[in-house]
Amino acid sequence: MRILVIGATGTIGSAVANLLAGEHEVVRVGHTRGEYRVDITSPDSIRELIDRVGQADAIVGCAGPAAFRPLTELTDADFEFSFRNKLMGQVNLVRFGAAGVADGGSITLTSGVLAREPMPGSAAVSLVNAGLEGFVRAAALELPRGIRVNVVSPPWVSETLQRMGQDPAGGLPAAVVARAYRESVIGDRTGQVLDARDFA
Amino acid sequence: MRILVIGATGTIGSAVANLLAGEHEVVRVGHTRGEYRVDITSPDSIRELIDRVGQADAIVGCAGPAAFRPLTELTDADFEFSFRNKLMGQVNLVRFGAAGVADGGSITLTSGVLAREPMPGSAAVSLVNAGLEGFVRAAALELPRGIRVNVVSPPWVSETLQRMGQDPAGGLPAAVVARAYRESVIGDRTGQVLDARDFA
Repeated sequence: MRILVIGATGTIGSAVANLLAGEHEVVRVGHTRGEYRVDITSPDSIRELIDRVGQADAIVGCAGPAAFRPLTELTDADFEFSFRNKLMGQVNLVRFGAAGVADGGSITLTSGVLAREPMPGSAAVSLVNAGLEGFVRAAALELPRGIRVNVVSPPWVSETLQRMGQDPAGGLPAAVVARAYRESVIGDRTGQVLDARDFA
Repeated sequence: MRILVIGATGTIGSAVANLLAGEHEVVRVGHTRGEYRVDITSPDSIRELIDRVGQADAIVGCAGPAAFRPLTELTDADFEFSFRNKLMGQVNLVRFGAAGVADGGSITLTSGVLAREPMPGSAAVSLVNAGLEGFVRAAALELPRGIRVNVVSPPWVSETLQRMGQDPAGGLPAAVVARAYRESVIGDRTGQVLDARDFA
């Protein structure tokens, strides 16, 4: 398969790209680095990427920040930023990416455990993650040509916790989280939220 | 209790206002009609309303449209509209309304069954409804002074189905849906999604 990994320079994205590269042709797409680049906040940038890369069997989206901050400190701009990046950025990978996906191919997005297991500071992130899951369940009903769409919900990732000075044992290594993405790409699921902990 | 019902001229909002008015002081707020008005897409309008109405024991939000349209016909503007209206409009009732809610009071928002049970055409609505549910679960952890927040998920409403020329028996009457809002206001739940069908 030819698989486009968006956000391939990130912690999860690089692990997904590495896992899939053993068996497939992986095209790595970054935001500011790499041969192929995309700004997922821009529909035009996504459309240009799809045109340039050509047809793929799968698109995997591991990109898009959202604002983590106490509720009273979250500004209008924080919600706007989260909407444009992690939420609409990934929604638009489906809206504009599907045209570049082969019959029976797939698109896989990234939400996160905070969608259903919130913590103080996660109001905007929880909104975005849950919104993505709602979108994916619905979009799966309408994608043409047998194209599937799922969303992987990663827990805290060990590498991220380590960078934050916390115990990495509280999370799952990115290489393990990557297995949920592989299942979404090679399996036959659609419209589903894959909790990455179920593939550990 | 003094209860602010936002969207009190709508099908669900008027049923909620009528149900609560039997036992409480209900302040009905409309968009284009009524003594009190608010444009929930405007943070300033929400803040002005809260200033003008004064302290309430509960705020109930039953307002905010979202775009129902096939995935391929949903435009950037449709997503933007849905984000600003039903999603951020209600999120902002929490962000800016909490200051006007008494200690131990509550805020209740409205999502909908499409969050978890999508249908063709519901991609933007499902995104918005699920996003609201994720936000409420998280915001409940951070609201001050014992203020609770929940979201009611109504199924199709009989009156709406009838207006659409469909069998009203396929839905729940607004007066029945209203019971879930009353439970959110008078009960002790917080951070929960109340499926209105559970209160029928």
